Amino acid sequence: MKNTFALCSYLLLLVTLLGLVFSNCKANQVDNLDELINSRSSENPPKTLSWTKEDAYIPKYYYTSSIDPSPSQEEQKLADKITALPGQPYYGSNFDQYAGYVTVDPNAGRDLFYYFVESPANFSQYNPLVLWLNGGPGCSSLGFGAFEELGPFRVNPDGQTLYRNQFSWNEVANVLFLESPAGVGFSYAQNDSQTFFHTSGDKAAAKDAYVFLVNWLDRFPEYKDREIYITGESYAGHYVPQLAYTIVVNNLFRQIANQSAINLQGIAIGNPWVDDFTGVKGLFDYLWTHALNSDQTHELIERYCDFKSQSVSSICINATRNAFAEKGPIDSYNIYAPLCHDTSLKSSQTGSVYNYDPCSNVYVQAYLNRPEVQQALHAKPTQWSHCSLFQWKDSPVTVLPLIKKLIDHNINVWIYSGDVDSRVSVTATRYALNVLKLPIVTPWYPWYSENEIGGYAVQYKGLAFATVRGAGHMVPSWQPERAFNLILAFLSGYPSPPSSPK
Amino acid sequence: MKNTFALCSYLLLLVTLLGLVFSNCKANQVDNLDELINSRSSENPPKTLSWTKEDAYIPKYYYTSSIDPSPSQEEQKLADKITALPGQPYYGSNFDQYAGYVTVDPNAGRDLFYYFVESPANFSQYNPLVLWLNGGPGCSSLGFGAFEELGPFRVNPDGQTLYRNQFSWNEVANVLFLESPAGVGFSYAQNDSQTFFHTSGDKAAAKDAYVFLVNWLDRFPEYKDREIYITGESYAGHYVPQLAYTIVVNNLFRQIANQSAINLQGIAIGNPWVDDFTGVKGLFDYLWTHALNSDQTHELIERYCDFKSQSVSSICINATRNAFAEKGPIDSYNIYAPLCHDTSLKSSQTGSVYNYDPCSNVYVQAYLNRPEVQQALHAKPTQWSHCSLFQWKDSPVTVLPLIKKLIDHNINVWIYSGDVDSRVSVTATRYALNVLKLPIVTPWYPWYSENEIGGYAVQYKGLAFATVRGAGHMVPSWQPERAFNLILAFLSGYPSPPSSPK
Repeated sequence: MKNTFALCSYLLLLVTLLGLVFSNCKANQVDNLDELINSRSSENPPKTLSWTKEDAYIPKYYYTSSIDPSPSQEEQKLADKITALPGQPYYGSNFDQYAGYVTVDPNAGRDLFYYFVESPANFSQYNPLVLWLNGGPGCSSLGFGAFEELGPFRVNPDGQTLYRNQFSWNEVANVLFLESPAGVGFSYAQNDSQTFFHTSGDKAAAKDAYVFLVNWLDRFPEYKDREIYITGESYAGHYVPQLAYTIVVNNLFRQIANQSAINLQGIAIGNPWVDDFTGVKGLFDYLWTHALNSDQTHELIERYCDFKSQSVSSICINATRNAFAEKGPIDSYNIYAPLCHDTSLKSSQTGSVYNYDPCSNVYVQAYLNRPEVQQALHAKPTQWSHCSLFQWKDSPVTVLPLIKKLIDHNINVWIYSGDVDSRVSVTATRYALNVLKLPIVTPWYPWYSENEIGGYAVQYKGLAFATVRGAGHMVPSWQPERAFNLILAFLSGYPSPPSSPK
Repeated sequence: MKNTFALCSYLLLLVTLLGLVFSNCKANQVDNLDELINSRSSENPPKTLSWTKEDAYIPKYYYTSSIDPSPSQEEQKLADKITALPGQPYYGSNFDQYAGYVTVDPNAGRDLFYYFVESPANFSQYNPLVLWLNGGPGCSSLGFGAFEELGPFRVNPDGQTLYRNQFSWNEVANVLFLESPAGVGFSYAQNDSQTFFHTSGDKAAAKDAYVFLVNWLDRFPEYKDREIYITGESYAGHYVPQLAYTIVVNNLFRQIANQSAINLQGIAIGNPWVDDFTGVKGLFDYLWTHALNSDQTHELIERYCDFKSQSVSSICINATRNAFAEKGPIDSYNIYAPLCHDTSLKSSQTGSVYNYDPCSNVYVQAYLNRPEVQQALHAKPTQWSHCSLFQWKDSPVTVLPLIKKLIDHNINVWIYSGDVDSRVSVTATRYALNVLKLPIVTPWYPWYSENEIGGYAVQYKGLAFATVRGAGHMVPSWQPERAFNLILAFLSGYPSPPSSPK
């Protein structure tokens, strides 16, 4: 018996389950991803757009918000400079921080919020610019990337003081965190608060991010010729290649117009959602092989689920429901991690980057909602949350062809994968890479972070793949040192991660 | 092209590799297992014996070492009592400890060493007797089980003081650690130090362990009617069912002779080696699905390795070698754990049961070789080590039929599996259980340890299977609380582990 549910109605139950389990916690990146994938089976599924040169081209008039800006970009940069973040530790802050808004559409009043962390003073001029994007779609790069993953500070359990991340990426790069698209975190659409719902989708997100970047470079002109790398995780597996391709295409037009190109060197995406079919198949295979599912349930899925088909049998739907029920309430983003059982703030406890706290979301949300923190960040008073719910309008079922195009344009592509994440699993990513059929330059080998194996790597022609051993969905949260050494190798221009101990 | 190597020559390289990697560390349980399995391809492979009633029967005259014993068993028990272990913490030692030798063959002078830890005084008379056996074949239950896993004390990094294990199994049982067979740890053969090499094998080990138990019960007569459970891990997947069956068979003869039976209730075996075929297949499948091996290598193994066959193609041999080479130097017993990089003893550091120290072997070896410790344990001065090398004379390729027999004799069988051990993997154990084709009573469900999922369980008819989430090969080392709650449910007579949080 066949039902007419589309591809991923398997995941319908998932959101409900997570709603129950993490009822005290905020939405996570993949919860929003599930919403999106589920919506493929709705009456108004997102369009699956190809990414042609024409799609990516952005007319110059579109991003001239800097024409007659008042105040000037120079003044605006000065205004964006952060004196100090509330609760910031006295030691270990020998670098400059900026935060504020960049207008991407003056008519709709769409302003995107950024938080920029430079390298320590003597190195900022030599280090590259790294843009970081979190996924969702609809989740905050400030809440996740900056304050729980790769930024210089994390939030203590009191929700009001910060501690240092010794493995902050700003040690080797000037890191720009962007809340994208409008409607996420502190980013907004002024004139019509609903605007972003009508314009939200992969293409609009890439367009706004591109316009943001051009205008941001007007405000920070010393970075205009700098090497730029775009990084991100989860649904940023869509965002990053799409923004990169937008840059590549517009660089061609800029060359024609005799303008300087954006110096894009490479992209690095972690536990990225890049392909629906391998993503869903890899999810269920991972659950079984990691002893979270029964043989019986997996056998039914193997036999009755054709994830490429648009029609799904009821046996398959039941089996996939069982798959989620059987694993029970674990942290799907790190299957061996503890859950957050106590969501209250705690006084007189100091966090450590070596021991990821499963309640971090709670502390970060409290911190970013403090008026003095929003003021220090130059953010408009906002009820800030990690993720917003979106009606996503366009989203191709795969970005693998786009990744191939980037390789053809000599953009260095790294894909890494924390190997204890069940949601966008290393299994799924391996399946996706096999679809690309890239020639192997250096076959599977262990790579090293200090004196331990950091994970495994394969160097394909134009693309490096690396696992990160013992890391969950948010790789820098659970394995900060390994993530740091990986990104250091990437930014240093190595073709793949180091194959011997330090 | 086919070579005439037997079943497990795949593993030949493994021992060499481990020798290199862990050159500073002592042999582990599975290294000895590899030796054994490799020896199946030698000119003198161990015989694969069936276990019939006749094999298991031990004539009474065989175990009458207690006839005319001098000193009496009562005096011997008194002599075996441990005043205090050197470096033992003052608090948390409200229980009695004994250690010493029990003769199993007076002619050969074969004496087996035991360490016995009673429950705290008010409970020892109510709690059952639990015998613990480590694997190898040839590894010490004192070094592993008692001082690194489930015993009341662990050794600090100074190699001379102890700290408490809050999750010691003696809280709920009187625990008897046996160094078996003769030649392991403090156990020896007096008259002919080589005796154990000529008699070592599964059948001899079971016979000696049985005679030990009968004689030990003469020394501790208050336990003669007590409920007894036999537990162990790794190659004890052979030892435990074989000893249990020996007891079952001899109980029948004792009934005929109107003697009281040994009150055996159940067995629990962790990450047990029970079946060569599924064990080797499960090892390689685990390596691939946990992103430790390349797709290419796994595909070759899938296509060219028939682990049931006695002849192996050279393609298969190369592929299995690649499988071990590709994963590189990680701790195969816990694929996410750090390695021991500094094998020196450290002063002024206190260990914690919550944070397993990868250098524990070093501390334990130092401790058990201290003359005052050997004296306190009533052990003969010995150059003690975790594992001894054996020429193993008999070992069936599977004990699954024996496990079936035990179920038929109403012995409660629990099999548990730490899910991050690659050597005797949860995958291998699931494959082995599928061979048994037992009816499922309660299908796959998450079981709870406190408020977290401790792992997953299936209740078969007569057998419970439980995974232990985030535990390596030595389950109580890496997940002491989960192991404790699991064994508590087992000893409390539950048919399978608890299905809801505490």
